[in-house]
Amino acid sequence: MAFDPTSLKYDAQGLIPAIAQDHATGEVLMMAWMNAASLQRTLDSGIVTYWSRSRQAFWAKGETSGHVQHLVELRIDCDRDCLLLQVTQQGPACHTNRRSCFYTLVENGAERITSDPIC
Amino acid sequence: MAFDPTSLKYDAQGLIPAIAQDHATGEVLMMAWMNAASLQRTLDSGIVTYWSRSRQAFWAKGETSGHVQHLVELRIDCDRDCLLLQVTQQGPACHTNRRSCFYTLVENGAERITSDPIC
Repeated sequence: MAFDPTSLKYDAQGLIPAIAQDHATGEVLMMAWMNAASLQRTLDSGIVTYWSRSRQAFWAKGETSGHVQHLVELRIDCDRDCLLLQVTQQGPACHTNRRSCFYTLVENGAERITSDPIC
Repeated sequence: MAFDPTSLKYDAQGLIPAIAQDHATGEVLMMAWMNAASLQRTLDSGIVTYWSRSRQAFWAKGETSGHVQHLVELRIDCDRDCLLLQVTQQGPACHTNRRSCFYTLVENGAERITSDPIC
């Protein structure tokens, strides 16, 4: 079955959540949003390109920081309303310079930061 | 820092995306939505409880199917607008009886189903 990005289910803003997972380690790095056009750009270029909700613009991850995500594999879920991207991550994925955005653990009713910036 | 579910950033519907990852294998199983109350229920019970957007009701995963998700670890992302749940998954996570909802791979411009229902 040919894949058509416009066949997915987007929300009222035309967006779909995209989970980025480190292809080598399985670590979940971040979650951001795509629209059909940014998904098509990702497929065409092999560089993961989100849609920035704050800037209302394409967000080619790492374009300014160099922390590029190369797409290894794209999966869609059963409801066609979420994407899973296996990526090769250059440097940190998080804007705080941590490898993953999910560096805050909740345990025993408290928050604890579990990783430091890579710098 | 004490953790307060209401301190997270929810969307206009009061929801936050929650990614469920198999604690043992690292496989991303599904993505669904929580509100502050379902997150609090999850923390109190140890049973992952989403908010069903279609039913507008709590969705204690596996309540009818038996395919329960036991919470092992909860993480929040840098923007406090996404959750990562490490879980122990009983049976399939997907309503199609597949282990993961992300069983459709996009490769060479086409879709390919990569796993069969468990049952």
